[in-house]
Amino acid sequence: MLKELREQVLEANLEVVRRGLVLYTFGNVSGISRKDGLVAIKPSGVPYERMTADDLVITDLEGKKAWGDLRPSSDLATHLHLYRSFQEIGGVVHTHSEFATSWAQAKRPIPPFGTTHADYFYGPIPVTRELTAEEIQDDYVHATGVAIVECFGNRDPLETPAALVADHGPFCWGRSPEDAVHNAVVLEAVARMATYTVGLKPKKTGVSQTLLDKHYFRKHGKTATYGQS
Amino acid sequence: MLKELREQVLEANLEVVRRGLVLYTFGNVSGISRKDGLVAIKPSGVPYERMTADDLVITDLEGKKAWGDLRPSSDLATHLHLYRSFQEIGGVVHTHSEFATSWAQAKRPIPPFGTTHADYFYGPIPVTRELTAEEIQDDYVHATGVAIVECFGNRDPLETPAALVADHGPFCWGRSPEDAVHNAVVLEAVARMATYTVGLKPKKTGVSQTLLDKHYFRKHGKTATYGQS
Amino acid sequence: MLKELREQVLEANLEVVRRGLVLYTFGNVSGISRKDGLVAIKPSGVPYERMTADDLVITDLEGKKAWGDLRPSSDLATHLHLYRSFQEIGGVVHTHSEFATSWAQAKRPIPPFGTTHADYFYGPIPVTRELTAEEIQDDYVHATGVAIVECFGNRDPLETPAALVADHGPFCWGRSPEDAVHNAVVLEAVARMATYTVGLKPKKTGVSQTLLDKHYFRKHGKTATYGQS
Amino acid sequence: MLKELREQVLEANLEVVRRGLVLYTFGNVSGISRKDGLVAIKPSGVPYERMTADDLVITDLEGKKAWGDLRPSSDLATHLHLYRSFQEIGGVVHTHSEFATSWAQAKRPIPPFGTTHADYFYGPIPVTRELTAEEIQDDYVHATGVAIVECFGNRDPLETPAALVADHGPFCWGRSPEDAVHNAVVLEAVARMATYTVGLKPKKTGVSQTLLDKHYFRKHGKTATYGQS
Repeated sequence: MLKELREQVLEANLEVVRRGLVLYTFGNVSGISRKDGLVAIKPSGVPYERMTADDLVITDLEGKKAWGDLRPSSDLATHLHLYRSFQEIGGVVHTHSEFATSWAQAKRPIPPFGTTHADYFYGPIPVTRELTAEEIQDDYVHATGVAIVECFGNRDPLETPAALVADHGPFCWGRSPEDAVHNAVVLEAVARMATYTVGLKPKKTGVSQTLLDKHYFRKHGKTATYGQS
Repeated sequence: MLKELREQVLEANLEVVRRGLVLYTFGNVSGISRKDGLVAIKPSGVPYERMTADDLVITDLEGKKAWGDLRPSSDLATHLHLYRSFQEIGGVVHTHSEFATSWAQAKRPIPPFGTTHADYFYGPIPVTRELTAEEIQDDYVHATGVAIVECFGNRDPLETPAALVADHGPFCWGRSPEDAVHNAVVLEAVARMATYTVGLKPKKTGVSQTLLDKHYFRKHGKTATYGQS
Repeated sequence: MLKELREQVLEANLEVVRRGLVLYTFGNVSGISRKDGLVAIKPSGVPYERMTADDLVITDLEGKKAWGDLRPSSDLATHLHLYRSFQEIGGVVHTHSEFATSWAQAKRPIPPFGTTHADYFYGPIPVTRELTAEEIQDDYVHATGVAIVECFGNRDPLETPAALVADHGPFCWGRSPEDAVHNAVVLEAVARMATYTVGLKPKKTGVSQTLLDKHYFRKHGKTATYGQS
Repeated sequence: MLKELREQVLEANLEVVRRGLVLYTFGNVSGISRKDGLVAIKPSGVPYERMTADDLVITDLEGKKAWGDLRPSSDLATHLHLYRSFQEIGGVVHTHSEFATSWAQAKRPIPPFGTTHADYFYGPIPVTRELTAEEIQDDYVHATGVAIVECFGNRDPLETPAALVADHGPFCWGRSPEDAVHNAVVLEAVARMATYTVGLKPKKTGVSQTLLDKHYFRKHGKTATYGQS
């Protein structure tokens, strides 16, 4: 079932490893077929080295398994809430990449400190609120997704395709699983540079709205001029 | 003698190198056969590149050599004290991995700053007290083991399978040599993120007990749901 | 057209990747044929892995395309302004290398903290002023070049072949594209060490003029003694 | 002439590259034949990738060339002064390895913060005084050697086989060129951990003399027990 999607999702999972964003079985990538209302996701706790497209799990948007022998990633419910809430996204990735995770642990949003950030993220990378004890105990994984969506408010999730889950780590997304992973890789680079930048200038603030607009819209939207048409 | 154990211990020693936790002949991994009351450990000062399972040394729990031509690791007495005191562990590893060692040198326990930590370690990574001059002079290696056991008090050593020896570096353990090394690799990642986190937020404290419980018991114990059953 | 130059520029672009200075399609290198008044530059947004010398774009010094099917790098106008203003340079490179970019984001010039710096850069690495909102909106890429040239004043651009564009990242140059990339690699190392140095000694100042002279002129100019004659 | 020595010195130079201690043509290693009073050293500015044992240069202890077609390393006079002053050393290495260089730039000696340091260096890694303007102008390279020897006073240079030249970088030595490089690799690891340690604990001081003695003499001198006899 949905073999092409499963292969894309497998490849995106392996790319996360090649880019050094995860250790062991940490992290997970999913992709969605909007037409079918089905999500393909990494299985839980299977070593990347021997993962094949047949190990992936397919569920519907409520988490009911539609295909596959294995258990889905333990973070499935977060992915599903993001797909339900952010209608235009096609892929979701969660990592514990070390610099983004450190900002998540510090519960500091990452301000747009420069053009690298502005090329990919149209404003600060938000941090979720802490979950209540009840949320953690009763419905932790779903509540994580709820908190991510909440912290976006009216912001367009495709304009800033990443959030830091407080005390946990980054979730990123994009138009496809591949695109989501690309954003996760850039987020880690942005987080690394932001860490060095505040070391050099503790009171550093974000770039001007004008510069943010210039860089963001040079690469995104109808007025983009970056790349080959 | 105990060829299978020696091969497991050799492989665990080589994994420590592959994971970048040691330089030159630094570090050492051992494993125990509880049935036989015998421990296989890395020889002292032998380059990893040419180490074979025949270079390992087997001793009893008092350190009497039972097999092998070479001298055992100079840290043998620490390993043995851990095996005698922590009855359920099957492997021990010592490294000078750089971030964990830096916390050991700073004599700061590593608080559970996020879910990566909570997934593996059920509470802070403790730091041993400083040894007295007498302990250092008379029975240094054994006293190091005593100090590790001491700093656990009533805590379950398998729930937090690591300690930082003050001014020295980490010791980790697990149900097997392989498991011990896995914990050492994660400890280094956790120490790295903890270093960045306190840089970003000097007063950062550990996560809530509720979040610690959620993550720890999602991966450990009877209620675990992570991975494939 | 200008096949040899295009091959040099291609090779310089690939070297930037091999040296770890860029992610994905970030960064760009160009080279100039002064005799022909033509510049060869990386195309915009083409993956390095499949870039060939035939993908490069050749323009005149006003940016009019003279050869090639693809769009030139979106930073072309900055490169051209540097070539027009700095008559002796033969290559220009722009990266988002992480430590140099962090200094650019912190808007701190990099002082000559030691002899590694002095061996390559005859004084501080300057930071450009912030562009005005009008400059950003109307003529951003060209204005970036203007700001770089401005911040050099009367300094010889070949004696300090690098500048940090505020909130953006480094531009470097040299007598050839290869030389420009070499300088970019050293700049990143210098920025990395400068970061660690101010961590260890926040009030650290530049080396003495005497030491700067000694090291710089040991490697550069008529009195140079470094290397084989 | 002295082919075996040249091959050892070549190999030690290449090891410096493999260990990531140098960029481009930075750094240099030499070795001495005490019997012949001759030193073999890396040529100046030759890329490591194509260096052969025939490119090395042999000089006497006053710097007079005894063999070889190329110019010796520009740091030759420092090496020679170390060989003349430290009678028991057999190899010298100079690098700009990034963490050790950062301590040199900060002009902070590296205290023995833990047992990794104590295993190799019997006390702080000293920093040289700044050279006078006259020394820099008139006899810079030799004066650098003089300052290194000066900062050792009565300390045994083989017990602490490294010094940080202020505003410049580390020089290390040992009983052979190979041994010198080994010490340079460990120094860089020690400097890296010392950097993280002071970040975590700014007022961190060196370990006790008792612990320093225990670790140092476990690996060095007549009472050593580390390794195979």
